[in-house]
Amino acid sequence: MFLGRVIGSVWATQKEDGMENLKLLVIQPTDFKDRDAGQTVIAADRIGAGVGEKVIVSRGSPARILFSGKNVPVDAMVVGIVDSYEVTEVGE
Amino acid sequence: MFLGRVIGSVWATQKEDGMENLKLLVIQPTDFKDRDAGQTVIAADRIGAGVGEKVIVSRGSPARILFSGKNVPVDAMVVGIVDSYEVTEVGE
Amino acid sequence: MFLGRVIGSVWATQKEDGMENLKLLVIQPTDFKDRDAGQTVIAADRIGAGVGEKVIVSRGSPARILFSGKNVPVDAMVVGIVDSYEVTEVGE
Amino acid sequence: MFLGRVIGSVWATQKEDGMENLKLLVIQPTDFKDRDAGQTVIAADRIGAGVGEKVIVSRGSPARILFSGKNVPVDAMVVGIVDSYEVTEVGE
Amino acid sequence: MFLGRVIGSVWATQKEDGMENLKLLVIQPTDFKDRDAGQTVIAADRIGAGVGEKVIVSRGSPARILFSGKNVPVDAMVVGIVDSYEVTEVGE
Repeated sequence: MFLGRVIGSVWATQKEDGMENLKLLVIQPTDFKDRDAGQTVIAADRIGAGVGEKVIVSRGSPARILFSGKNVPVDAMVVGIVDSYEVTEVGE
Repeated sequence: MFLGRVIGSVWATQKEDGMENLKLLVIQPTDFKDRDAGQTVIAADRIGAGVGEKVIVSRGSPARILFSGKNVPVDAMVVGIVDSYEVTEVGE
Repeated sequence: MFLGRVIGSVWATQKEDGMENLKLLVIQPTDFKDRDAGQTVIAADRIGAGVGEKVIVSRGSPARILFSGKNVPVDAMVVGIVDSYEVTEVGE
Repeated sequence: MFLGRVIGSVWATQKEDGMENLKLLVIQPTDFKDRDAGQTVIAADRIGAGVGEKVIVSRGSPARILFSGKNVPVDAMVVGIVDSYEVTEVGE
Repeated sequence: MFLGRVIGSVWATQKEDGMENLKLLVIQPTDFKDRDAGQTVIAADRIGAGVGEKVIVSRGSPARILFSGKNVPVDAMVVGIVDSYEVTEVGE
């Protein structure tokens, strides 16, 4: 998974099967110092993440298993809204 | 998923099983400021996206589940044509 | 999928189960202006692509579904030989 | 898989189905000379890796198969804590 | 798949289910001119590749299908030891 910040939403009327009623968020991947880290990703969200919140995003087919039994062609899901983190750059 | 702009089409007569009757579009990934963001991708399209339109593309095996029961070896699908988006670069 | 140019072949005698009788091509990813675009990829080919030809390559598990019922551990397949393409850099 | 160093933890109260009771670690990918190699990854851990330890991380759907029968939408797992490695830069 | 050179081994005592008795090699991806091409990858090996040998590595879930029926959370496998290759940079 990667850490990201919700920066917006995307809407599409004309879409593929299985994309109905999905909330699509725009996620800016970040590092743990709040610096941008790569291109934005569009992720589906079912847990109510809002603009400005830090989230955990899962990619690929694991993201899809949340819709088991339905054919939902997403490749990225918001799987958690971050409460806190603790990161120590450990020397060796 | 990622945001992209349809910039063209590709045609192939000699192809693998499952690739028949598939419309293949050339997608230029972009950021939300319309700037190019990485290499072009060839994606299958079933929802009628046209050159110049902004689309949402899903990659990997999730793209394939749209063809459940058939063996279609695509790894990228256009899953939505973008109506609008709202992106705010939120400070922290 | 991505666009590439066939630039060679690789042979291996000692190999994993399922790799028998597979033709392995070396593909140089390119953009639509024939410029190289990233590292070479080794892809399996069943449709007779030859050196110098432009091909469409599919990656990941979708590539594998072509061998349904057999366990073939490839992660890239040539899925089409390009006849032609039409790409327009559309302004916005 | 890739080599990484555990540099921290992330906590989320609001999360997707299947993410309950999962320990989420922040992993800094490294090369075999202890130099950072790319963006941090959030990986689930069930084997007790701690901050500062070198670990092996597996990505994508293979990571998920450890939870067979349950729908756990993770895309990265700590699969080993490194005891030692031996790396020789072989000339050709 | 990608071309690589075996540059070492990694050992882990504490590991996830399914990782028992797996030989883990450190692979340096290379291009076809023996130049390094990207970060090292840790791949499982069942075909006896040794340090200094050129190998073909398959990634993602295809790598896992070699262990059908068992839950082995690897995302990279050595699938061939290269005997020879022939690569021609074809002009267009």
